[in-house]
Amino acid sequence: MRILGVDPGLKNIGWGIIEVISHQRLLRHLDHGVIETSSTWKLADRLKHLHDELSTIIMEYNPDILANEALLFQKNVSSALPVAHARGVILCLSAMHQMEVKSFAPNTIKQAVTGNGNATKLDVQQMVKILLKLHTAPNSDHAADALACAITAAYGTPCVSDKLT
Amino acid sequence: MRILGVDPGLKNIGWGIIEVISHQRLLRHLDHGVIETSSTWKLADRLKHLHDELSTIIMEYNPDILANEALLFQKNVSSALPVAHARGVILCLSAMHQMEVKSFAPNTIKQAVTGNGNATKLDVQQMVKILLKLHTAPNSDHAADALACAITAAYGTPCVSDKLT
Repeated sequence: MRILGVDPGLKNIGWGIIEVISHQRLLRHLDHGVIETSSTWKLADRLKHLHDELSTIIMEYNPDILANEALLFQKNVSSALPVAHARGVILCLSAMHQMEVKSFAPNTIKQAVTGNGNATKLDVQQMVKILLKLHTAPNSDHAADALACAITAAYGTPCVSDKLT
Repeated sequence: MRILGVDPGLKNIGWGIIEVISHQRLLRHLDHGVIETSSTWKLADRLKHLHDELSTIIMEYNPDILANEALLFQKNVSSALPVAHARGVILCLSAMHQMEVKSFAPNTIKQAVTGNGNATKLDVQQMVKILLKLHTAPNSDHAADALACAITAAYGTPCVSDKLT
């Protein structure tokens, strides 16, 4: 079973692919990276770029599950709205490719990966390195967060309802 | 020139197509309707349904411009976030079909169509009927709002910057 983790955003969208080998604690890292868009682009063009890049990744790795961060209790609307636009495109793509969606609260992901719901970004990067047996930690915290989402899903962590109604 | 107006939403997404004949004040109504999704569906499935229905409309009418309502100063985050997810899909589709995006503030649309930035939904429905020479006003205010967006774009009304950065 393959899991695509995505760290939703508009400027830097982290992604990572892992494979669950026979048992949920035996994980294999396949790939990770960051999709970047420029704030000088029109919003529609940024969303299309995200769509095109993520489509290519999905078609290359054919994942079964999309693991991502839920948008919960956003106090800062001006920063939440762009992320919600991007997340709309990401979730739509997951349905188009028959992927199951698993969404987690940020502290659930930190808890699952590091054992501490208030872990720092550096803690997450280091634990992702250890859990996936990488030579070096992902140098982008966006990619590390995406891999952490995928690991959280692989562990069978309960996800949040994501009806947003 | 054809303009697709869309009233972004997640449950009821109004849409309307008009054609600008030779001069911006000579408008022809082509079609309108409402795309509906159920709150019992998963968010990703609702977004895919919106994507599929709107794609069909775009391929049928081949519009040049997408006119829509900008998401500005949303005080109620819980209602703005679902709309932003849907709007992400709508804007992404517009870029995929090489449509120019024009976004307007709600009161700009009301002002352009009725002459009053604080007009009621009924005022907008009635003016849409008059301006597009319809036999009856659209019975959905979502479709009327979408047609009002399209009319606002046809009139050359200045739109808002929509970088959302």
